[in-house]
Parts: sequence; structure tokens; C-alpha cells
Amino acid sequence: MEATDLAWLLAAFALVLLMFPGLALFYGGMLGSRHTLNMIMMVMGALAVTAVFYVVIGHGLVLGDSIGGFIGNPVEMLGFESLMTDDGSGSTFWGAFYVLFAGISIAIVASGAAGRMKFGAWLGFAALWLLLVYSPIAHWVFAFDDEEAGVTGGWLRNVVQLHDFAGGTAVHMNAGMAALALALVLGKRKAFPGRPHNLPLAVLGAGLLWVGWIGFNGGTAGGASFLAEYVVLATLLAGCTGMLGFVIVEKFREGRTTTLGMITGLVAGLVGITPSADAVSPIGALLVGLFTGAAVSWLMTLLPKLKIDEPLDAFMVHGMGGIVGTLCVVLFGAAAAPAGITGVLFGGDWDILWRELVAIVATCLYSFVVTFVIAKAMDKVIGLRVDEEIEFAGLDTSLHAESAYHLSRN
Amino acid sequence: MEATDLAWLLAAFALVLLMFPGLALFYGGMLGSRHTLNMIMMVMGALAVTAVFYVVIGHGLVLGDSIGGFIGNPVEMLGFESLMTDDGSGSTFWGAFYVLFAGISIAIVASGAAGRMKFGAWLGFAALWLLLVYSPIAHWVFAFDDEEAGVTGGWLRNVVQLHDFAGGTAVHMNAGMAALALALVLGKRKAFPGRPHNLPLAVLGAGLLWVGWIGFNGGTAGGASFLAEYVVLATLLAGCTGMLGFVIVEKFREGRTTTLGMITGLVAGLVGITPSADAVSPIGALLVGLFTGAAVSWLMTLLPKLKIDEPLDAFMVHGMGGIVGTLCVVLFGAAAAPAGITGVLFGGDWDILWRELVAIVATCLYSFVVTFVIAKAMDKVIGLRVDEEIEFAGLDTSLHAESAYHLSRN
Amino acid sequence: MEATDLAWLLAAFALVLLMFPGLALFYGGMLGSRHTLNMIMMVMGALAVTAVFYVVIGHGLVLGDSIGGFIGNPVEMLGFESLMTDDGSGSTFWGAFYVLFAGISIAIVASGAAGRMKFGAWLGFAALWLLLVYSPIAHWVFAFDDEEAGVTGGWLRNVVQLHDFAGGTAVHMNAGMAALALALVLGKRKAFPGRPHNLPLAVLGAGLLWVGWIGFNGGTAGGASFLAEYVVLATLLAGCTGMLGFVIVEKFREGRTTTLGMITGLVAGLVGITPSADAVSPIGALLVGLFTGAAVSWLMTLLPKLKIDEPLDAFMVHGMGGIVGTLCVVLFGAAAAPAGITGVLFGGDWDILWRELVAIVATCLYSFVVTFVIAKAMDKVIGLRVDEEIEFAGLDTSLHAESAYHLSRN
Repeated sequence: MEATDLAWLLAAFALVLLMFPGLALFYGGMLGSRHTLNMIMMVMGALAVTAVFYVVIGHGLVLGDSIGGFIGNPVEMLGFESLMTDDGSGSTFWGAFYVLFAGISIAIVASGAAGRMKFGAWLGFAALWLLLVYSPIAHWVFAFDDEEAGVTGGWLRNVVQLHDFAGGTAVHMNAGMAALALALVLGKRKAFPGRPHNLPLAVLGAGLLWVGWIGFNGGTAGGASFLAEYVVLATLLAGCTGMLGFVIVEKFREGRTTTLGMITGLVAGLVGITPSADAVSPIGALLVGLFTGAAVSWLMTLLPKLKIDEPLDAFMVHGMGGIVGTLCVVLFGAAAAPAGITGVLFGGDWDILWRELVAIVATCLYSFVVTFVIAKAMDKVIGLRVDEEIEFAGLDTSLHAESAYHLSRN
Repeated sequence: MEATDLAWLLAAFALVLLMFPGLALFYGGMLGSRHTLNMIMMVMGALAVTAVFYVVIGHGLVLGDSIGGFIGNPVEMLGFESLMTDDGSGSTFWGAFYVLFAGISIAIVASGAAGRMKFGAWLGFAALWLLLVYSPIAHWVFAFDDEEAGVTGGWLRNVVQLHDFAGGTAVHMNAGMAALALALVLGKRKAFPGRPHNLPLAVLGAGLLWVGWIGFNGGTAGGASFLAEYVVLATLLAGCTGMLGFVIVEKFREGRTTTLGMITGLVAGLVGITPSADAVSPIGALLVGLFTGAAVSWLMTLLPKLKIDEPLDAFMVHGMGGIVGTLCVVLFGAAAAPAGITGVLFGGDWDILWRELVAIVATCLYSFVVTFVIAKAMDKVIGLRVDEEIEFAGLDTSLHAESAYHLSRN
Repeated sequence: MEATDLAWLLAAFALVLLMFPGLALFYGGMLGSRHTLNMIMMVMGALAVTAVFYVVIGHGLVLGDSIGGFIGNPVEMLGFESLMTDDGSGSTFWGAFYVLFAGISIAIVASGAAGRMKFGAWLGFAALWLLLVYSPIAHWVFAFDDEEAGVTGGWLRNVVQLHDFAGGTAVHMNAGMAALALALVLGKRKAFPGRPHNLPLAVLGAGLLWVGWIGFNGGTAGGASFLAEYVVLATLLAGCTGMLGFVIVEKFREGRTTTLGMITGLVAGLVGITPSADAVSPIGALLVGLFTGAAVSWLMTLLPKLKIDEPLDAFMVHGMGGIVGTLCVVLFGAAAAPAGITGVLFGGDWDILWRELVAIVATCLYSFVVTFVIAKAMDKVIGLRVDEEIEFAGLDTSLHAESAYHLSRN
């Protein structure tokens, strides 16, 4: 890797790390105050588990030479030993960067378990999920064939040839579906769910996520290139119109705009642009954000009708948001954008459609089914859910002997 | 643009984006808790409006070939279409960066409307202000003549030849005067103004602003150059002494130092160094911060005597702070600094004085008058101010059906 | 300096600046709410004092040509005048970067004074400490011999030849011991110490510290190099296992895991990796974090038994954490890591042990004794501690006429 590229990528890495406190506050602030610390610990703990898992075996499972296009061979990268010497390819950097990609995925899944899961069980679930769900899907999408090196990559990337710029499938749809599956296994919350207890904190979390996303998408560009300029611009624009799309729908439906809606739309817009940032024009990026924000705003009213309790809407924001963003590539990809895909609305080939649909269906189906099976099995064996009195009392005091706040004279 | 420059600029972009949650918390934390979410939404919503405006027409108005030195021709940059291909100049990056400059300007103006403006009216006002106030002034200051490309720039930059490193005029004085004009049109707050409801949040906001300012000034240097090193150092130093200058005056006047004073002084010091970062020595940067912080600390006691209610003091911090910083260039510019201006205190030419005065007067006058007219006109036509009972009840519950906090057992 | 290196270093600088609001919130959130603003002001005020001190005289004391290996000659760098022209070495950048290193050290010391020190006395103490404690120790460790330039550096670096990658001695052990000495001179808190009043804020602070640490360690690598990749990876991993190490010990001892423990372990892990980031393998980095987190978790139960009241445990986290991290280099340094040190567990030379022990003992002893003497002397002359009624009432209202929060209808 060129040092110029590395100079940007190191900064991008730090930005993506900012997404973890960001996500912790985003989720923690939107929950009732009884479960906030537990939520924060689930997010930060997920990253800790990821680091151990990834160094020991995960990196090879994701990026190692493919076993049938389905999973990487972990042998060469066991213990990150091979990353200790400079082979000029930046592989040490990418090892670190990919830890964060895996970590943010499982951290999003945590939202599905908000307020009712045992903490030890969560950490165990996180490890299993990384092994059995994240690693294969990430391999399908992130591992490129490399004929020169004699390395085979994942089937979605190389056989189906999906277009997914930075992880709409492996990160967002995957995490969104898994959060839904976990929420279904855990069951509905029994206690009063609580209102968002600290919206300024949630706004801050969303803001940090946005800044982190500049590193996430901009780092995926692989260096300080025109492509990085391009996707950073798109990431800015789609976040902006994600906010607008969500609150416009709110205004029409409810007659008012909310802060919670604005930040939910922001994250939805960012999810939408993740697969499409290199494939749409600037006007297209504005539309991707607008459509994703508006779609999520509209779809979020459906789940309660289905009697599903997915506490922080990861399925809607990341799952459906990821699908809408991926379909936007199909609809209005711009020939002049770096990816060079002409959307069907501009007379492009329908060929891209089946590739995206296969990627969406494979990711969502695999993620949902395997996550459901893992969660169900763990629930049978060790039990995932806390006792009812713990849930009512709040996980913070019951599991961690702490309260988020002691604000009165103290 | 060189890839080495871009590597820093991409990071600088992310830092400047951090200023938006930073400003939202800075203002939100200093307000009473009834209006916090509305304030946050005004800041974030302002950025969203800016993105749409800027892509569609704003970028050309600011940087397009000049029509008489007064305004850019938007035709070439309509819809950012021309930024879709790599012309090697980094124009795509700059498009994104300038969205943030426009966005932060209008976001500062929001402070003048704190706690009493209709939200839809705010978004409409923001669009008009960007069109009629920000775009021309930014063109005057940011658009350079380029003989080779046959492009003419703005009159303040090229005819008057002001010295303004990163936007003391177009961003800070402009936003400060506009906040004052908007506050005057809206009128004084009727309800109990409320005390700063969450100072740790405001401190965090100020801290994020500082970090963002490193990107704002350091990015304006245009790349990873000695100039960037120089202005980053100056931005650090002036922020530090901005804090000291403010609290020293407080200590003398009131006998105590306050957190609110410290963070106000921090931002004032940063405003002061924005026009002068490349023109003063390190000792000079310490003095710019000290003087700006002290001056704003002293001036802030005047407004209440004038019976003007400008709730979050943007006029003082950004308007007066920008003027003090600009005058500092005149007074103690250092010949050895990158800008090469010798201040009059060091025997320099008085020639620079009239240039700065013209820039200050033109910016402040135009901004104040046109903002006042826009606000007055909108007030006549649609009414800017919420009803009295809404103001008393708080904008958060009344306009957005939300409260910032639900901290009790929840 | 190469522009490619500078591109990363400018970003690293901004990240390290983020550590100041991070530390302010980390400490402020862990204190009772009566003293929060005072804590925040001590941290931010410490940076302000550092900037003035450093520009005027500090930079030369740390990096100037050595006077006997003990202290640098400040003459050449007085007023940063010599940093005003580009000598191609990046010295202007390093001037700014080192301000932050000094600033973060004294800011950590502030924790030892939490809730009972006069604010003016703190600022004065900070200046004296930077002069008499930080400057010499930093010179010993950070100033390299440069035969070509005819410059002599510090004795620990060049005679003893300690291994300390980014400041385990001069920053962390130094600050930890000084916090302990200051806490002892001030004496125990009389008022009810208060519980951590805002843990989400403290988590955010710890998260910002982590992101900043990427810049701290990654910037110390000196540019966009393989070394930077390597230490950034190590900094990620050790932070992760720092969290795990702390909460695992908690779980065994107390039967539960806490958020406070998790973030304390995070910072401890980061302290541990600071001296060793370039000397251990990725598996080694996981172990450094795990051991440091676990050791601090276990050691923290000792201080109360010694009847010492060091309110925010800087001695344990930074002092003991720094010692554990430094000893980790001795134990399991990896030959293949950039530093090329073979730990004694892998059959390496015991030679490194005495170098590290001399560095640890010299740093800790000098820091503790001189800090104690300064504090004791100041206490005799002007009195360091606030009156008892001020301590009971809370420093925020008493010294600063402010309260951190006004959350009720406001």
C-alpha cells in the first residue's frame, strides 16, 4: 500500500472506532434509563469479544483462501502472526480495520436484545454469531478472487458479482436480520418499555456514527483517491436527506417532526448509501438518503402491528434500509459514477437486478435462520433471558449493581 | 490535487462534520431544557437544508465564475454534475467541504432563534439565507481570480484583497450579525429564559468544536503542508488562551471563574484565530486568543444593557470575536509567518487596515441588513414566532412532542 | 518530514486533542455531581496553562540540547520563534503535538485533586509541575541523541536505553505518581465522596480517550508507516482485552461486572500498551491488555485498605498500569515485532530488565518526591485546600457559582 493511502486509512480507522461509543450512546440514549448501562456494555463488550475472536481465527475465516466460496481458510492467519511483518500490502492495517467491521455488525445485533438478555449469554452469543453468521457472509461479500496470488474469494462477490460498496449486505442487512431473529427468540419485553431517556445523548451518538461512517465508507475506498472523495461526498449527502426523508413522512402522518425521527432517518440514510455510495450521482445520493429515510419512517409503523417487539428497530433501519439502498443501485445507478452502473431508470441493463436480489435473499435468509437457530439452541441449553423481576427492576441495578445517573445532590 | 494533500483533507472533512453534533450540544446544553431538542433539530436540520441547496445551486453561486465580483454563476455546477469525474483538482472533495462551511454558518445563525421560532419557518429561512446572504458573501471572500482558467472571483478577495485565512468574515461575522438580526426580528423571549441546563454537554460540544476547528483551519490550508502545521498550532494555542482571557476578565469583574465562561472563551479564541491563523507568530496566536476571549468576556455584559436578547451570544462570540481576530492581523501580523504581513505594531504598512475595515463593514452591513429584511418579510407573510403558550410550555413538547430527558425510573 | 507522514500526523493531532474533552467527561462523569464542573475546568485549564508554558519555555526544556542528560536547554526554542519557518523537519508540527503530551499528563494529575482543591492554586500548581516534574522526565525519555546535529538527549533514553514506545514512563507513571502525591498532600475527602453521577458520560469520555489514543500511539510512530499500522492494531486490541481483564476479575471477586469496571479496564489496557505497542505480537497485545486490566482491577482494592483516598484512581490506572505494561515488554516482547525485543519468556536477554527497572524507579521516585515537595510547599505558602464548608457544598456552586445540571422544567 502507498503511504499516501495509509495516511488517510489510519485516520479512517480512528473514525470507525468512534462508531462504538457512538452506537453505545445512540442505543443507550433511546432506551429507558433502567437498561442503559447494560446496553452500553453489550456494545463495548461485543467489540472486545470480536477482537479476541478475530485475531485468533476470524480474519482467516473472512479473508482466507476460500473453501468452496463459502468460508475462508483460517490457517494462514491464525493469531495474526502473518500480519507482523510488512509485506507492503497494508495487511496489518486491514486486519485492524476488519476487526471494526465485524465489531460494528455484532454491536448492532445487540439492539435486538435490549433490556432482557443475560450479559454472559450475550458475550457467548456474540462469539458464536461471529463464527457462524458474520464470518461466512463477510467472506461471501468481502473476499475477492485474486488470480495472481492463487486465492479464491466468496461466491456473492465473485460468482454472483453483487454490487455492494461497503457492506450493505454483510454488515447492515446481516445485523438487521440477526437483531430481529434474536428479538423473536427472546420474546417481547414484559416490563414497561420505557421512553427514550436521554435524546441529546442519542443525537450525539448518531452524530458520532455519521463521522465514523465517513471513515467506514471513505476507508473502504482503499486510500486517498478520487473514489474516497466521491463516497465521502455521497455519505454526507445521504445522511442529510435521510433526516429530511424521515421527518417529512412524520410530518405528513403525525403532523409533527421529532428528534428521534431525525436521527433515525440520519442512520437510515447512511445505511442506504453504504452499498451505493460509488454508484449514484450526487443528486442520486440525495435521493438514496431521502428514499431510505422515508421508507424506514413508513415501514417502522408496521412492526408493532405484527406484534413484534424489536426494541431499537435495527431490523428496520439496518435491514430494510440496507435493502432499499441496494435496490437504489439497481434503480438509479449513474453511468458516470465510479462504479459505472447504469440504473434501469436510466435505461440500464436489468442484469444487475438478479445479482442484487440473490445477494439480498442469501444474506437475509442465512442470517435470519442461522441466528435464530443459535439463539434458540443457547436458550434451551443455558437460557438467554433474565428473570422477570430483573427485567422489571432494570438490568443496570440487577446485573451490574449500578445506575446510569445519580444526579441529585451528590 | 496531490494524494498526500487529499489524505489529510479527507480527515479534515470528518473533523469539520464533527462540528455539527458539537454545535448542537454546545447550544442545546446552554439552553433551558424545554427547548433543547428544538435547538438540536435547528442545527442538524440546517445542515440538511444546506446539502440540498448546495448541490442544486449553491456551489456555483459561491465558487462559479463571477458575475461582477458579486455572485458566482451557478450554471456550470448545477446538481454537482461536474464533480462526478476526476479532473485531478480535488473539486469533488471541495464540493463536500464547502457544504460544511455553508452548513456551519447557518447553524450558528440558529442560535439567534433559540426557543421561539417555528421549525418549518426556520428551515425555510435557512434556505433563503443561504441563497441571499451566505452565497454572495462567501463568493466575495472564497472565490479567487484564476487568470489561467479565465475565471473571475469575488470583489473582497481580489479587488479589496482582504486578509481572511479561513472565514472570519464569510462564516463568523456573517453568522454573528445574522443571528443578531434574526433575534431582533423575533423579539425578546417572553418566558423565563432558563439556565444552561446541562453544562457538561455544552463543554463536550465546545470540545468537539475545537477538534473540528483543527479540520476547518487545517483543511483550509489546502493539504498536508507547512501551512497546515502552522495554522493547526495556532488553532491549538488561541483556543487555550481564549479560555484564559475570558475567565481572567470574569475573575476581575465577578470574583469567580465559570465553566460557561471558559467554553465561551474557547470558542471566541477559535473565532479570533480563524482569520489570522497564518498571519501571526505562536506568541501572537496566544495573544489573539487572549484578546478575543477577554474582549468577548467584556463585551457580553453590554447587550443586556441595550435590552437586546440574543440568547446564545453568537453576535458577541462570532461577530465581535471575528472582528477582533481580523483586527489582530492588522495589529500584530508577523512578517515571518506564512502570510507575510507585518502588523502596524511591528512597523508594518497601514495599507492592510482599510482592506480589513472594508471587508468587516461590507460583510457585517450586508449580512445584518439582508438577514433583517428576509426575516421581517417572512414574519409578515407566514409569521416566524410560535404562540406564547408554546414558548412557555417549551418548544420540545409543543412542536416535537418530545422531552429531552426521562431520567426518573424508566 | 514527508508530506505523506504529515497527512497522518495532522489527523493524529486532532485525535489527541479529543482526549481533553474525553478526559474531562471521564473524570467529571465518575465524580459526584457537586464537583463535576470544577473537575472539567481543571482538565481544560491544565491544557491552557500548558500551552502558555510550553510556547514560552517548555519545548526547549523537553527537547532542547541536553544539559547533562537531565534537562534541555530552552534558549533555542524560546517563544516557539524557531518553529515559524519550514525547515522541512516538521518541527512546527511536533511543537504542537508535544503541547498535547504535556497537557494530557498534567490533566491526569488533576484527578488526584478532585473535589477539594482551590482552582487558582491548581493552575499555579500545574505550571510548577510542568516546569519541575514533567519537563525533566519528558526530556529523559523523549529527547534522542542526534550526533549529526550535535545534540545530546536525555539519560534514560540514551544512556539507560529504556524501551518505552509512547510515554508509559513520562506520561503515565509520572502522572499516576504525581496524582498520588498530590492526593496525599491534600488529604482525604471529608464530605461524602459521592457516587459516579453520570456513567454514560464517563463511557463517552473513555471512548473518546480510546479514539484519541489511536492518534497518541499512532502519531508517535512518526508518520504513515508500517510502524503506525502496527501500533494502531495493538492499541485496538489492548483496549479490548483491558475491558475483559477488568470485568473478569470483577466477576470472580464480586460476582458481577460493572460499566465502571469496563471503562477503567479499557483505559488501563491502553496505558499498558503505550510503552509496549511496538514490542509485542498481536496475541501479545491482547495479553498486555488482559494483564493490565486484570492487575488494575485487583490492585484497586488495595488502596482503600491503605486508607489512601486517591479519588479517581490515576495512581492505579496510569501508575501501576504503566508499570505492568512496561514489564510486559520484558516478559513477552516478540522478536518479530518492530522493536525487535525478545522477551525473557521467549528466551530473551535479561538485559532489558534492568533498563526498564531503572526507568520505572527513576520516573516514579522523581515524580512522587518532587510533586510531593511542590504540593507541600504550596500548601504551606498559599494553602491548596478549600474550606470544609465549600467541600460539603460542592466546588461547582461554591467556586464557580454554577451547577452542572438544571434538568427540571427549565
